[in-house]
Amino acid sequence: MEIVLNKEDFSNGIKVVEKITAQKAIQPILSNILIETISSDRVRFCATDLNLAINYKIQGEVIADGAITIGAKKISEIVSRISSSQVTLKTQEDSENIKIKSGKTEFDMISMGANEFPKVIEENNDDFKTIVLNKHDFSKAIKQVIFAVSTQETQTVLTGVCFTLQNNILELAATDGNRLTRVQNEVEFDKEEALNFIVPAKTLQEVQRISSIIEDENITIKVQKNKILFEFKNLSFQSRLIDGIYPKYQQLIPAENDKKIVADRVELINSIERVSVMVNDRTNVMRFNFSQDQLEIMADTPEAGRSKDYVDIEYGWDNMLTAFNYKYVLDALKNMDSKNVEIEISDVLAASIFKPQQETGNYICLIMPVKVQ
Amino acid sequence: MEIVLNKEDFSNGIKVVEKITAQKAIQPILSNILIETISSDRVRFCATDLNLAINYKIQGEVIADGAITIGAKKISEIVSRISSSQVTLKTQEDSENIKIKSGKTEFDMISMGANEFPKVIEENNDDFKTIVLNKHDFSKAIKQVIFAVSTQETQTVLTGVCFTLQNNILELAATDGNRLTRVQNEVEFDKEEALNFIVPAKTLQEVQRISSIIEDENITIKVQKNKILFEFKNLSFQSRLIDGIYPKYQQLIPAENDKKIVADRVELINSIERVSVMVNDRTNVMRFNFSQDQLEIMADTPEAGRSKDYVDIEYGWDNMLTAFNYKYVLDALKNMDSKNVEIEISDVLAASIFKPQQETGNYICLIMPVKVQ
Repeated sequence: MEIVLNKEDFSNGIKVVEKITAQKAIQPILSNILIETISSDRVRFCATDLNLAINYKIQGEVIADGAITIGAKKISEIVSRISSSQVTLKTQEDSENIKIKSGKTEFDMISMGANEFPKVIEENNDDFKTIVLNKHDFSKAIKQVIFAVSTQETQTVLTGVCFTLQNNILELAATDGNRLTRVQNEVEFDKEEALNFIVPAKTLQEVQRISSIIEDENITIKVQKNKILFEFKNLSFQSRLIDGIYPKYQQLIPAENDKKIVADRVELINSIERVSVMVNDRTNVMRFNFSQDQLEIMADTPEAGRSKDYVDIEYGWDNMLTAFNYKYVLDALKNMDSKNVEIEISDVLAASIFKPQQETGNYICLIMPVKVQ
Repeated sequence: MEIVLNKEDFSNGIKVVEKITAQKAIQPILSNILIETISSDRVRFCATDLNLAINYKIQGEVIADGAITIGAKKISEIVSRISSSQVTLKTQEDSENIKIKSGKTEFDMISMGANEFPKVIEENNDDFKTIVLNKHDFSKAIKQVIFAVSTQETQTVLTGVCFTLQNNILELAATDGNRLTRVQNEVEFDKEEALNFIVPAKTLQEVQRISSIIEDENITIKVQKNKILFEFKNLSFQSRLIDGIYPKYQQLIPAENDKKIVADRVELINSIERVSVMVNDRTNVMRFNFSQDQLEIMADTPEAGRSKDYVDIEYGWDNMLTAFNYKYVLDALKNMDSKNVEIEISDVLAASIFKPQQETGNYICLIMPVKVQ
């Protein structure tokens, strides 16, 4: 094989795929990137840790066809340091090594056979169910739900985000038992039936990362029995799905909470962060005292002291004292874009709803309050 | 005590002194900052870990005299989050707590008695020998020598920088046995005799940090038997000195190395960084092959491969192959400011000199080469 790549394209290709390699795997080849020629002016970069797999096509001048694998970490270091705008990669006749040349700089890299590299992604498969949606909307939806995913490995299904597709509405939901997030988006879907599956949070974080680098407007999601494929024009990213039944979270969402509070979202964030200096870091409990048009926020911790702050709000019911884990409230507030937040409470011990005022997507974050004396 | 501080001054004061506190000390009061009134419009912030100590005076409106101590970590968090431009600190009549008010925000901080706070710095003492020098020059001199200090705790004297003052020249030197740095600066000095003392590297790092925040043009150094005081207009920083005899490094510096090489400093740095991708990270050895006007730089490591790069140089002697720990070379090159570097070599196995071309301060970095096959 002999190819000439533009340095920027090369660097970008490595950056996109290298995170999917397995650096400490039993199979050393999983720490490598497969580079293979696919036409006279296209090469494909592939990486996998066997759970996740990625293929990415870039422009390149192909002088001789072939395929090579190279260590992701070393090639990434090389690409970040070369000064010339073009890089030549060439297999050696007398060894398995690869020669990388750029300007006056030369590297001889020890390589591993390309035919040992596992092929994980099957791009063409009729069993796939296909959903097409706007990349920006999808990325925002992931951001709004993913923080509520459980980090407890024992609750396997809760470590993923639940996807439900019905009547061209894709609903994403996540919960760790103390809070729940839900968001809905309209999508194009090629089948009549309803779909339900659980995607690992780690997979969605990678989708976020890839989406931020790739310039496509849309993303295509293809789902099969136990795997999911995220497709862009030049990129395919595959993951296994989480096996199991997601809890019926819909019944936990209250239909109507009568007491409504409106507050400036950023002011509320700043106030909570100020008060948090004195929060008891074993409980994270912060007290919220709602009264006519004013919210008093309080925290205390025996060894350090007490803190107190006030925020102007719209609120027209009786005084009401409740308490939350302040980190859950901050997570909810920081993942909205709206100027104002609406808080809906029916009772100081029932699930409270936090949602952006005037925004599409039907986004809510449910937070269970903490009992206070 | 009751004082009103400008938020910026307060924040700056905390930032300067908080690093000198001891956060996990047996004496809990060492994690606190002492704030005491010293006139109707000045307060002093003090912190110490018993080895180091700092006093810093700032502007403030003193309503009632007194002294308090407050936890450095908490007060730093508070100051970074308050939104108002003024902060009031007030002792409470009914408790040892301190009330901190800023706008609508209030904190009640649990405190410890100010009279328990250790007084470490004696600012007026006739035994001091006083040196005055330009802050910028001193800061640069520290930067140029400090990286060669030994990190082996067993070689106590080598973990500090050796200061020698003779005929109004202050010489700083550091060595870890493999390399040696030396720089000289003219200073004002109030005594006739010669001075020689060893300052812990950690102390000098703090001096660097403080110098970068404080706006004074000069720094005054006062030395006593076993301690050193660094003084600015509103700030005093004290440290113990390292006890012991510094090795006679002057005799290690070759008077004349006949083979002289001139290279562009930044080009050489970039080239070494490119080649370093394939360096054996157990030895860090990089080979340097000097020939007529060209330097070939090479590295190899059995598991990964080989790398090679070329740099244009001025060199007019026979071909010469030598090798260095490339990290030592990079440290030397990165701590110079000049466009070009001069390398002086007498023999491929003797100490080589790296120095900035056309610069004052008589700065040199000596590096011992590595034997290559």
